[in-house]
Amino acid sequence: MSGQVEESMSGRGCGRRGQKEKLYSQGVNNMVYAAIMGYGTIGSGVFEVLTVNRAQVAAAAGQEIEVKYVLDLRDFPGSPAEDKIVHDFSVIVNDPEVKLVVETMGGLKPAYPFVKACLEAGKHVATSNKALVAAYGTELLAIAREKHVNFQFEASTGGGIPIIRTLYRCLGGERISEITGILNGTTNYILTKMDREGMSFEQALKQAQELGYAEKDPTADVEGHDTCRKIAILTAMASGKEVDYEDIYTEGITKIHAADLKYAAALEKAIRLLGSAHMNGDAVSAWVAPVMVGWENPLSGVNDVFNGILVRSNMLGVSMYYGSGAGKLQTASAVVADLIEETVHLNENVPLGWSSERLSIMPVSDMHWAYFLRISGSYDPVKDLLAEHLGECRVATLPELSGEEFGLVTGVMSEGQMDAALAALAPALEAAGSGIRQKIRVEA
Amino acid sequence: MSGQVEESMSGRGCGRRGQKEKLYSQGVNNMVYAAIMGYGTIGSGVFEVLTVNRAQVAAAAGQEIEVKYVLDLRDFPGSPAEDKIVHDFSVIVNDPEVKLVVETMGGLKPAYPFVKACLEAGKHVATSNKALVAAYGTELLAIAREKHVNFQFEASTGGGIPIIRTLYRCLGGERISEITGILNGTTNYILTKMDREGMSFEQALKQAQELGYAEKDPTADVEGHDTCRKIAILTAMASGKEVDYEDIYTEGITKIHAADLKYAAALEKAIRLLGSAHMNGDAVSAWVAPVMVGWENPLSGVNDVFNGILVRSNMLGVSMYYGSGAGKLQTASAVVADLIEETVHLNENVPLGWSSERLSIMPVSDMHWAYFLRISGSYDPVKDLLAEHLGECRVATLPELSGEEFGLVTGVMSEGQMDAALAALAPALEAAGSGIRQKIRVEA
Repeated sequence: MSGQVEESMSGRGCGRRGQKEKLYSQGVNNMVYAAIMGYGTIGSGVFEVLTVNRAQVAAAAGQEIEVKYVLDLRDFPGSPAEDKIVHDFSVIVNDPEVKLVVETMGGLKPAYPFVKACLEAGKHVATSNKALVAAYGTELLAIAREKHVNFQFEASTGGGIPIIRTLYRCLGGERISEITGILNGTTNYILTKMDREGMSFEQALKQAQELGYAEKDPTADVEGHDTCRKIAILTAMASGKEVDYEDIYTEGITKIHAADLKYAAALEKAIRLLGSAHMNGDAVSAWVAPVMVGWENPLSGVNDVFNGILVRSNMLGVSMYYGSGAGKLQTASAVVADLIEETVHLNENVPLGWSSERLSIMPVSDMHWAYFLRISGSYDPVKDLLAEHLGECRVATLPELSGEEFGLVTGVMSEGQMDAALAALAPALEAAGSGIRQKIRVEA
Repeated sequence: MSGQVEESMSGRGCGRRGQKEKLYSQGVNNMVYAAIMGYGTIGSGVFEVLTVNRAQVAAAAGQEIEVKYVLDLRDFPGSPAEDKIVHDFSVIVNDPEVKLVVETMGGLKPAYPFVKACLEAGKHVATSNKALVAAYGTELLAIAREKHVNFQFEASTGGGIPIIRTLYRCLGGERISEITGILNGTTNYILTKMDREGMSFEQALKQAQELGYAEKDPTADVEGHDTCRKIAILTAMASGKEVDYEDIYTEGITKIHAADLKYAAALEKAIRLLGSAHMNGDAVSAWVAPVMVGWENPLSGVNDVFNGILVRSNMLGVSMYYGSGAGKLQTASAVVADLIEETVHLNENVPLGWSSERLSIMPVSDMHWAYFLRISGSYDPVKDLLAEHLGECRVATLPELSGEEFGLVTGVMSEGQMDAALAALAPALEAAGSGIRQKIRVEA
């Protein structure tokens, strides 16, 4: 590509629009070299996006992005990346021509030392690896700042939703008070199936596995660990402080029953696995849990493998971002968007991320919700007992379970108050031949 | 503000995060002066956002943004902007210290000559004025490019949704094939009320006017003109070509009846006023019309005064952006986000917008939809007649209107085919004592 440079096209001009090759192509007169570390699903997707959308990417980045190396232990004979494959990391880190490095290996070893070495060598890095960002983000961001390069991770949180860039680019002038998201497509698919088709958790999980939406070992998804790392990253972005994901109370969806979804529907609510952070000055809560959300909440309409992220800020109010969970090309597109951002800022660090100051998160016992309880037996015999311990509640019944059990929605109280109330209530309920079967938080 | 500049803080570092004053405040050691033209609802909102979020804005922009002048014909004794008020535009355009100009006057005169003069004087402009952008955007963008300044208009389209920046910053490497949005809060409020409370259009409009959601003369909203200008801007952003809003087929919601919403619900659909553009190579459709959308479409869940914009692109697939319609502070926040973007790019033009090449939009007769028809009388007597002219259809009835009328959903056909079929059908229906009462497009 050559031609006159009529505009400021030094590689700093930002964000050329995809379909404007005609308008801006005169400026695309350079090439920047990239390496992809890890040629699995996402890595090969990045290669594909860079190939299929070559013209759009060049127009947006102001330079063509050319993959020089693909690092993998395997060879890929016959694949489009065949002649780029290298097995030795030192080839990449020692090649001064490589300015951009994609990390799509996953895990921490060797992703962490490789990424660190690349940043220290003055290369930009884009990663899809949320475990890496959650565990070492603070250090890697600091190295990037020091070396005047960029460490970007749009794909680590909500692959199909451009949320990281939205936070630092579009909402930079806002004071953010809440981020709440459906951040895991697998569990949202399972909950949607349980809701719509009355499946059990096990049935829905099996179907998700058959369709390739859930892994053989689904623990990271269904126990909320994946959501936990993602909300940790988003909370750090919104607060500007380091968040230790181990500080975040995390509960998955394995204990959710089909009946819970029926009660939820009767209450005009949906059950969603949420990751959430609320920031009110120094009082910060952050948690992952299945929650009953009202149908009027736009997150209740996020179904199947889709993700949704709601942001509340002081001037803009509520805004929401919706997209695919973590498909191959969606995630790869997010990585490529990072490469574009890095290419237009090849010689400067774009301030994003967080400092090494640790965010203090309140204990879960201080967090407030209303609660849905499912209680065995009939309501009338234990009515006074429940009122005594839980205060005024809304009763919900399902005709098919009448006499067998009933549901209850309490007022808003702290988790500590709720636990104390349940501890006091349990023996009395038991004496009356009844018992608590389920506790699910309800959006207050 | 002073201190060491430890990072690249020349005004090019982009998008400092709001709550990271600690992390980045060492870089905020300059001040940039702004002028606000028009101190009405939005203009005073911009002043308020810049005041309330002063620290966030400075951290994000890398410099403090200080309002030097507020241009208005009126004085505002006792208002916070009292001592900034000027009545003479030349004060602003001739002051070399003013780098940023906000245009929140509305209308084309004198907004157009003022904005043009500011850009020609090398000042950046941020506007909330969609009429200005739709009418003169091409020219103003070209002047900004020539003068190495920026003409930004995030607030012109979906005040509470950062969609313009998302298009050029986040989706820059994507090939966009569709943008469809609920872009007008007033009409969405009216349709929501008609749906939920069975109100007539007139009743719902009256309530919207009483609540201040609709203007005394609601024409621009209810006839779709506002949506038309917004989808014109979005289509130009997505295609990179100039769009004449007069080329966009535009139909409002004044002919929608309460009964239509009942049929829609029976069909598991919602009626929404959509602005939409589909881009498939050179075949581009763009239109504004009330449309029946299925409940599975996330746009069907956008209620009340909220807006939602769905983008379909070749790698990311469907992403959706949701937020407040056009409240004072939401719109003002969008203007301030533009000021931040302009401040971090004070010395360069950020390529965004479109060229002067005119986008060719197909005639409405070539666009394809399914159609909902409401037909007087009973179905059985005209069954064969309908099948003959319209092909296979789905019948929908409301118990309370049984015998009086029925509904029909046709297969997908072009608007031209539909019009021809209806023209041929009408006399035969009339002869049978029946007639077409309504035609609403249905999402194909």
